[in-house]
Amino acid sequence: MKLTFLGTGAGMPSKERNVSSIALSLLQEANSVWLFDCGEATQHQILYTSIKPRKINKIFVTHLHGDHIFGLPGFLSSRSFQGGNQPLTIYGPTGIKEYIETSLELSATHLTYPLIIEELKEGKIAESENFEMYCKKLNHGIPSFGFRIVEKDRPGKLQVDKLIKMGIPPGPIYKQIKENETYTLPNGEVIFRKDFLGPTKHGRIISILGDTKSTEKNQKFVQGSDVLVHEATFNKENKELAEKYYHSTTEQAALLAKNSAVRKLILTHISSRYQSIDYPILLEEAKDIFHNTILAEDFFETTIE
Amino acid sequence: MKLTFLGTGAGMPSKERNVSSIALSLLQEANSVWLFDCGEATQHQILYTSIKPRKINKIFVTHLHGDHIFGLPGFLSSRSFQGGNQPLTIYGPTGIKEYIETSLELSATHLTYPLIIEELKEGKIAESENFEMYCKKLNHGIPSFGFRIVEKDRPGKLQVDKLIKMGIPPGPIYKQIKENETYTLPNGEVIFRKDFLGPTKHGRIISILGDTKSTEKNQKFVQGSDVLVHEATFNKENKELAEKYYHSTTEQAALLAKNSAVRKLILTHISSRYQSIDYPILLEEAKDIFHNTILAEDFFETTIE
Ligand SMILES: [Zn+2]
Ligand SMILES: [Zn+2]
Repeated sequence: MKLTFLGTGAGMPSKERNVSSIALSLLQEANSVWLFDCGEATQHQILYTSIKPRKINKIFVTHLHGDHIFGLPGFLSSRSFQGGNQPLTIYGPTGIKEYIETSLELSATHLTYPLIIEELKEGKIAESENFEMYCKKLNHGIPSFGFRIVEKDRPGKLQVDKLIKMGIPPGPIYKQIKENETYTLPNGEVIFRKDFLGPTKHGRIISILGDTKSTEKNQKFVQGSDVLVHEATFNKENKELAEKYYHSTTEQAALLAKNSAVRKLILTHISSRYQSIDYPILLEEAKDIFHNTILAEDFFETTIE
Repeated sequence: MKLTFLGTGAGMPSKERNVSSIALSLLQEANSVWLFDCGEATQHQILYTSIKPRKINKIFVTHLHGDHIFGLPGFLSSRSFQGGNQPLTIYGPTGIKEYIETSLELSATHLTYPLIIEELKEGKIAESENFEMYCKKLNHGIPSFGFRIVEKDRPGKLQVDKLIKMGIPPGPIYKQIKENETYTLPNGEVIFRKDFLGPTKHGRIISILGDTKSTEKNQKFVQGSDVLVHEATFNKENKELAEKYYHSTTEQAALLAKNSAVRKLILTHISSRYQSIDYPILLEEAKDIFHNTILAEDFFETTIE
């Protein structure tokens, strides 16, 4: 599980930061990559990573502001050019369907793969073999969503030593034991899987929020996340601007992380009013409140263990 | 008068070439810059030039394929952010209005300047103090236009020597003489402007065509251009592919240049199947037919004297 920040700026692109997009690589878990937002030139950024557009099979759109969606039509079109033929599902606020369909239709873009567009309602969005996905409305000028990706708990490792001690030699039988709650041995004895498994591996939780004003209401939704990705459009001094434009400050993001017991906070969506020289200060403002904080830059990657 | 090639690739962006856009700088002639097409990330390319988005007051869209228009909503939005408040006019094929209005509306983008969108009909598009603009339908899978920008002839230089010899000393009177067909001297004598002007400066002509299959019908439209910008999606060998996909080859573009007596040919819209190593060959194919040819790369600039 790996996060790649493709764009970490706010509002419009600069030489330092592109507009919003984050990739969650689940190649081991689901042989796929999920995208969160797709600002203009996201496909250009992808050219400089190892991400294959055809592997991207879900796109989560937090809200419809241009810096989060204007890269969608181009990405969808290029995914066709590059031989994508597997279905792609887009989840986004009401209006996302009209935006995409109008863009593709008027530009006479014909996709080589099925495109499914689902408009969001709060709650559970979808469930796959290994994941459950939830969304919640945040507090922005227009409807803006946060996403909580919950990996399902995985059974512990089969305790081979124990089985061998019982006189059960390795073989296809081990797979049978691991995949069924109970198993009847050739001698008629019934054994329980749970007695031969190590501790359950708890699923990881990743919360990625769209643009939002700071509010305690987001606390429960991100509670206990392994990683929380939160916007920090402004520094702590500009609390009033953040309030006015429905955004958050470094300090507010850190407070949320602290109060909801997340393990790691990653700040993104940094206003272009801040330059390289300001980044350490922005980061310190957050770290003073929540130590395990990172300020993302374009192409920053982090593995979630 | 200067052309800046912002994107010279076809279909989708690569590390070497962005999708289509060309800027025509008329800072001396009209204190403005005109854009021809606006593929995705055109605004990103502009960041690496000296072009000011607020100076761009006309955008000519050749056709609605994604690689020519997906950068429009982002550009329009950023022009607002950057303090643009002067009107902007977009000329493009039927559908351009719906595309732009839907994108801006759904993304809740509010522009700080008046936006005028005019859908094209063949013939004269507009006339300004110094220019006349024409368009013509080409031969592509969807309606695709070429543009012919004709600078008006400018009166020659005032021949100061002659005036002085006649006993008319320099002063505000010179401006009066230059701006009126006839002028009455204090002594009652009527003089004619034409007798005191050097040779008329012929206006320059720039023809920029959108994607098109090769056809003799384009010849008259580009006749005598100082610069012809023409697509060359394929090399001369791939004539059949060009035919099939409604594009042109290097050779076909050069033939048009030759047969319509243009002064300079600039090739663009190069397929990503060709790499750096192929460019000299593509260029040679064209030069064999029309010597004064250039193969544009991103950020190539040329001044038109
Ligand atoms: Zn934003
Ligand atoms: Zn094209």
